[in-house]
Amino acid sequence: MRKGKHTYKADEDIYVAGTYSIVGPTEGKGRFGCFFDDVLEDDEWECKTHEKTEIKMHKHAIEQVIARADKQRTDIDCLIGGDLLNQLVASSFASREFEIPFVGVYSACASFGEAMSLAMFMLGRGNMRTAVCCTGSHYGAVERQFRYPLELGTQPTPASQYTVTGAGSVLLSLEGKQGMPKLTHCTIGKIVDYGICDPNNMGAAMAPAAADTILTHLKDTGRGEDYYDYIFTGDLGKFGRETVYYLCKKEGYDLSGCLNDCGSLIYADKQKDVQGGSGAGCSSVVFASYIYKEMCEGNIKRVLLVPTGALLSKDSSLQGESIPGIAHAVAFEV
Amino acid sequence: MRKGKHTYKADEDIYVAGTYSIVGPTEGKGRFGCFFDDVLEDDEWECKTHEKTEIKMHKHAIEQVIARADKQRTDIDCLIGGDLLNQLVASSFASREFEIPFVGVYSACASFGEAMSLAMFMLGRGNMRTAVCCTGSHYGAVERQFRYPLELGTQPTPASQYTVTGAGSVLLSLEGKQGMPKLTHCTIGKIVDYGICDPNNMGAAMAPAAADTILTHLKDTGRGEDYYDYIFTGDLGKFGRETVYYLCKKEGYDLSGCLNDCGSLIYADKQKDVQGGSGAGCSSVVFASYIYKEMCEGNIKRVLLVPTGALLSKDSSLQGESIPGIAHAVAFEV
Repeated sequence: MRKGKHTYKADEDIYVAGTYSIVGPTEGKGRFGCFFDDVLEDDEWECKTHEKTEIKMHKHAIEQVIARADKQRTDIDCLIGGDLLNQLVASSFASREFEIPFVGVYSACASFGEAMSLAMFMLGRGNMRTAVCCTGSHYGAVERQFRYPLELGTQPTPASQYTVTGAGSVLLSLEGKQGMPKLTHCTIGKIVDYGICDPNNMGAAMAPAAADTILTHLKDTGRGEDYYDYIFTGDLGKFGRETVYYLCKKEGYDLSGCLNDCGSLIYADKQKDVQGGSGAGCSSVVFASYIYKEMCEGNIKRVLLVPTGALLSKDSSLQGESIPGIAHAVAFEV
Repeated sequence: MRKGKHTYKADEDIYVAGTYSIVGPTEGKGRFGCFFDDVLEDDEWECKTHEKTEIKMHKHAIEQVIARADKQRTDIDCLIGGDLLNQLVASSFASREFEIPFVGVYSACASFGEAMSLAMFMLGRGNMRTAVCCTGSHYGAVERQFRYPLELGTQPTPASQYTVTGAGSVLLSLEGKQGMPKLTHCTIGKIVDYGICDPNNMGAAMAPAAADTILTHLKDTGRGEDYYDYIFTGDLGKFGRETVYYLCKKEGYDLSGCLNDCGSLIYADKQKDVQGGSGAGCSSVVFASYIYKEMCEGNIKRVLLVPTGALLSKDSSLQGESIPGIAHAVAFEV
């Protein structure tokens, strides 16, 4: 049922029946290290290229989330996947062996939010019963695709972020148990463009879209800033999180007590991460590890997850285009 | 309501309340020339790059489908868009000015099928009322991204296809009139990989997926091969269409009376198109022009549209990967 203009409510109970996260060694040494299901020993994982490592992580995340929820591949009605590689090759090559209907999504690093929003519409009312959403990214593959190959040793700028190596998956199902988090609402985001042109400053490009989606969600549902224990944006970084705080404050919402950013948190303070983490795997691995486990423990009751994406390609930047942002919000309660 | 394993039925009447198609000059001289809403005089349309032309066509197709259906931008609950450019820049840059929630989809040239399948789940039951789906492609932009820049004058191989320059959009709505085609079912396709590695032979890569989706749809719905006036695959080309015919025949379905391919048909016989057209714009412009108009006239009553996609990137081919295929089916009746 619709709540407000762009926010929709699940018709039936949709349980997050399982999650799985796999990350690279840098992420493993970060703040959520003990929450991840698997931490790789190196960034290659016996693969010849970073792209192949990303495919392998993605495939492993799908396999494991199905196995750990005691399901069979044939129980899954749909795989919804996204990543940052050109033509979504990580998601689609990872999904080809499962013989499960596949939906490829792209909202840059907001793809995890898009995937779960779409799953909310597809599950229930006699349609699908179970779907797996998975998104991931790989530092080496993303750097050379959007910026420069790692071998060049390019220095990060003060506003830059470090792409998360990892893949996170969730299994959404109409069947669940008491105490499992439920997906209750989604807000599909609009593209917002403030004219930022620096591909090393993603936080600035995405923050206006994140603020727009959060404000739309709160207004549509009539909820105050204190409704959620936490609002987690995807990968705005430290400056970007400040910008969202400021933009929401201007509209009368003080998010100081609840606003957090997966990207700002994923690395430990001692790690040289500049603004924090980013990438399609950033919000998915943090949700699939820390947030999900804390919800299952009852330590967090209500979360609004707002993965954020910067819409650019190497070509669009070279052709002088600005970087529009997008953010999709999904609400969970336990 | 679910019909069979991977086929879903619309809960409410979903009308195709309008369509719009814009194509390049080559497509304008093809078989459906008189059905397209707009034909460009040249491939540039006053833009500096082919990518910018593609964005402009895409934006125009969204604007026009809304205007011609006598709707306002604020009436549209969601834009669903896809294209072949890296990071979907055509769809997302075209959509940024509309201030409408945006969902980016990618199944290569099957994106039009994915977009309409998702719209079927999102519309109705108190959720969305109106959505616009739009996909497009540009010959020049796609050639230089996946193969070689046009300036190189590379010769096509006998199995190659010509990417359609064009964008096609549909406006799906719960409000409609008697005589308007309705979207009734969708079948989400699985990724099928027969190990084809030649990026100049897309038909061979996609045909197994197309056959799989068509057979799944017919078995799920219990329909025979004579139920549909036409089954239109997306862009298999002439060899690819033959392959689907053969694969379905082996399973006991003789599609000789109904199987057609948008890509095989879009160019006139006298045009040097080798196998026919391809691209995310191929099935969308043919559906938005010829198929839709013939359905509105009552000349075609039942159509199964099966856009087909080859999942590859330049990197995946260079790294020795094969080319998996995917196809999503959407059924229309008037």
